[in-house]
Amino acid sequence: PLCLGWALRPAAAATATNILLLLMDDMGWGDLGAFGEPSKETPNLDQMAAEGMLFLDFYTASPLCSPSRAALLTGRLPVRNGFYTTNGHARNAYTPQDIVGGIPDSELLLPELLKKAGYTNKIIGKWHLGHRAQFHPLKHGFDEWFGSPNCHFGPYDNRERPNIPVYRDWEMVGRYYEDFKIDLKTGEANLTQLYLQEALDFISKQQASQQPFFLYWAIDATHAPVYASKQFLGTSQRGLYGDAVREIDDSVGKILKHLQQLGISENTFVFFTSDNGAALISAPKQGGSNGPFLCGKQTTFEGGMREPAIAWWPGHIPAGGVSHQLGSVMDLFSTSLSLAGLQPPSDRQIDGIDLLPVILQGKLIDRPIFYYRGNELMAVRAGLYKAHYWTWSNSWEEHSKGIDFCPGQSVAGVTTHTQEEHTCLPLLFHLGRDPGEKYPLSFASEEYQQAMERISGLVQQHRDTLVPGQPQLNVCDQAVMNWSPPGCEKLGKCLKAPESDPKKCSWPH
Amino acid sequence: PLCLGWALRPAAAATATNILLLLMDDMGWGDLGAFGEPSKETPNLDQMAAEGMLFLDFYTASPLCSPSRAALLTGRLPVRNGFYTTNGHARNAYTPQDIVGGIPDSELLLPELLKKAGYTNKIIGKWHLGHRAQFHPLKHGFDEWFGSPNCHFGPYDNRERPNIPVYRDWEMVGRYYEDFKIDLKTGEANLTQLYLQEALDFISKQQASQQPFFLYWAIDATHAPVYASKQFLGTSQRGLYGDAVREIDDSVGKILKHLQQLGISENTFVFFTSDNGAALISAPKQGGSNGPFLCGKQTTFEGGMREPAIAWWPGHIPAGGVSHQLGSVMDLFSTSLSLAGLQPPSDRQIDGIDLLPVILQGKLIDRPIFYYRGNELMAVRAGLYKAHYWTWSNSWEEHSKGIDFCPGQSVAGVTTHTQEEHTCLPLLFHLGRDPGEKYPLSFASEEYQQAMERISGLVQQHRDTLVPGQPQLNVCDQAVMNWSPPGCEKLGKCLKAPESDPKKCSWPH
Repeated sequence: PLCLGWALRPAAAATATNILLLLMDDMGWGDLGAFGEPSKETPNLDQMAAEGMLFLDFYTASPLCSPSRAALLTGRLPVRNGFYTTNGHARNAYTPQDIVGGIPDSELLLPELLKKAGYTNKIIGKWHLGHRAQFHPLKHGFDEWFGSPNCHFGPYDNRERPNIPVYRDWEMVGRYYEDFKIDLKTGEANLTQLYLQEALDFISKQQASQQPFFLYWAIDATHAPVYASKQFLGTSQRGLYGDAVREIDDSVGKILKHLQQLGISENTFVFFTSDNGAALISAPKQGGSNGPFLCGKQTTFEGGMREPAIAWWPGHIPAGGVSHQLGSVMDLFSTSLSLAGLQPPSDRQIDGIDLLPVILQGKLIDRPIFYYRGNELMAVRAGLYKAHYWTWSNSWEEHSKGIDFCPGQSVAGVTTHTQEEHTCLPLLFHLGRDPGEKYPLSFASEEYQQAMERISGLVQQHRDTLVPGQPQLNVCDQAVMNWSPPGCEKLGKCLKAPESDPKKCSWPH
Repeated sequence: PLCLGWALRPAAAATATNILLLLMDDMGWGDLGAFGEPSKETPNLDQMAAEGMLFLDFYTASPLCSPSRAALLTGRLPVRNGFYTTNGHARNAYTPQDIVGGIPDSELLLPELLKKAGYTNKIIGKWHLGHRAQFHPLKHGFDEWFGSPNCHFGPYDNRERPNIPVYRDWEMVGRYYEDFKIDLKTGEANLTQLYLQEALDFISKQQASQQPFFLYWAIDATHAPVYASKQFLGTSQRGLYGDAVREIDDSVGKILKHLQQLGISENTFVFFTSDNGAALISAPKQGGSNGPFLCGKQTTFEGGMREPAIAWWPGHIPAGGVSHQLGSVMDLFSTSLSLAGLQPPSDRQIDGIDLLPVILQGKLIDRPIFYYRGNELMAVRAGLYKAHYWTWSNSWEEHSKGIDFCPGQSVAGVTTHTQEEHTCLPLLFHLGRDPGEKYPLSFASEEYQQAMERISGLVQQHRDTLVPGQPQLNVCDQAVMNWSPPGCEKLGKCLKAPESDPKKCSWPH
């Protein structure tokens, strides 16, 4: 009875598994040596894969950053959690700084749930689920934050719009291009080093306090404008993009080594992946590689949504494993809950699955992958078959201006520049024989009939039970930009917002 | 003095390093797990790479089988050793069974030279340097042969032309589709098992007799029509092509294990590569993958000529090495001579270099790669830059019939369907930033000027010293087909040849 007080402590306190999600920005499936990048410049990530498990069939939930991140943290498709638009059909929408919406309070985020198990939660890097006060990460379960609410890809100190702020917890501590420099000419910026140091310090602090942690390391050096620290500039055969990858690789190596040196690597589950495919539109200087896959970011072809993915957990995950499990960033939600001994919420549809049986016991779980673009189910993968219900790369109008999401990869009738409906007779590919989605199966073949019978059932079931969330990415307003974030007064960096003038956001693709 | 007799024995006898070249047919850079193939179905080859050295920038000397093989065995570019045509400009030519030419007696082949160092030389599989009597491999240095002189891709038992014979040493032992079955419907054939057993037996025999060996294992299961043994059919996620790769992977594993079990693995240098890029025209069912590279077989884009390559020599090559050395199949000639303690011939130009300093000491040797198509220097690589002097995929006439060497990969002005000359202003690519050859550098850039200055010098030097050989692939004649190969009498398989009617061979691309 004297010991009862101890026994009633949250079970997590001493032994709960730490969770470390390393989320890259616009990094492609083909950017790591372990995935076949021909320059082989990622020794630390390759080592991580050799010591852990490589996922070859791992997907994001959207070919664009914001919805992908919302899906990861909620375990739900963007069409459910609200990170989509109805302003146009099948349009990619995200959270620029004039967006009015963000993550709804009704959504339950992973850190909110982990808190119940005694976790301390930190986000380092890009939030991207809305930058207005009610969407702040510390209002949605995170305890600490160092990073920015929006992308660093503009404005570039042009004085017409406020530069994106960088926050420490509740308050901004400066702005990109003012206090946190990114040299657009040379590509020099020390941000990855700052984010690395933040991670190392946080891990040390948690280890010292014996508190389990969830660290969401959402860095963005591989998103255009790509950047790297001075010591990494010019070190890659791949140019600036490769320099950024090398710095990230080095940083991941340092983080894993830190866990080992602190003696907590066997108690820390680490997962590395990316938010969407490489942005071929920025390649080769500012964009990566999707390996053998078709097209890139913004599209629902494999290049847009298949991600590099590595699970690492020494002493638990057998070294050198390779999994063909169809996985999703949404599974990181469910898997993290499982690691914390928690059940997923039962009052809503969760799309993620618990990957622990896959990771620890080598199981394969039969489940489809849904490829959405905004409000439209574009494609479905089941087993090795992928059916496209709609195809679209981008519009002729954009294409004629040089915007091309599939440069050098034109597949007739597939990488279409008009939105093509195939719902009655979907285009079917066998991703084993044809990972590049170049050779549609004959509609008349028995193989087509059998595969489509199965997929049609999955789609029917999915559609019948789908309850779309309130679309958050419809309305834009210059007045909601980061004119005067909390903390701006102390820094003398408050700007005057213009009159509110809400408009429909324009989502061209 | 009593021991002098021993000392004077050829140095090779007891300790010379065995040489085992594993040459694949139409296998692509992207077909192995270690090179990023997404199905990861080559555990033995991946293990071979992990224990040896991976070459990421290794090239063939021609995007087509025969010239590539002639280059490997002579250490010389096809334009020097005669494996090219002058019937048309920049045309790929090879050795079908109506070809009159073959390897000239004036060429010195690797096995001829190794013989002087006491090696026993065997070829298993496809010869492809001419099938008429004077071109027989046993007339050019090989001691043993089990395999065929031409491709198995036709005739398919159609009775109008003789089926390709299979030889054991000097005599045929049967013909494809008659005695050596390949089921074109199911893809079943046990040939890889036969070639595997031949290799294991030969290695055992050599080990027992303590004689050093050169084994040239030139199998062809991945050349269309692709085949695999029954036990491998249906085992791959990639379809029949993947089944063939799995069987090859399994066979390579067995060969390496055999070397280890015999205790001669530390005395056997093994090199794995392919004769040209994957034949995308046959993909996905009958062709492989070139990973992130442009186009495939028949072209001088990276997909046509960059090859998977692995060096393995336990106890000598440090495990897990990755080399960016620009290598060539012609280097296997020079490297093998070096292993045998021999000097390359000094009376002719040798294009291959000795890779041992690269393999054993991690050196990098500065040397260009020349990309030929028939009689034309199409492109040159120096460092990370590649300049195209001519571009051509295939003609509009062929293309309109559905023949496409770059399916789903159309790069404007690059994958041209007319022969485009760029000799005054070559198209320049940086293969580090842009392995897919999609983004030509601006002619006006300083980078372009500097890179082209260097490459122009290399090209000038190459052209100034080039002495083309007599073209061997100009004349075709139905009479020279394999109507009555030696040994046909015993088998009752002699056929009557038609009248001789020599014509210019037709090389459409």
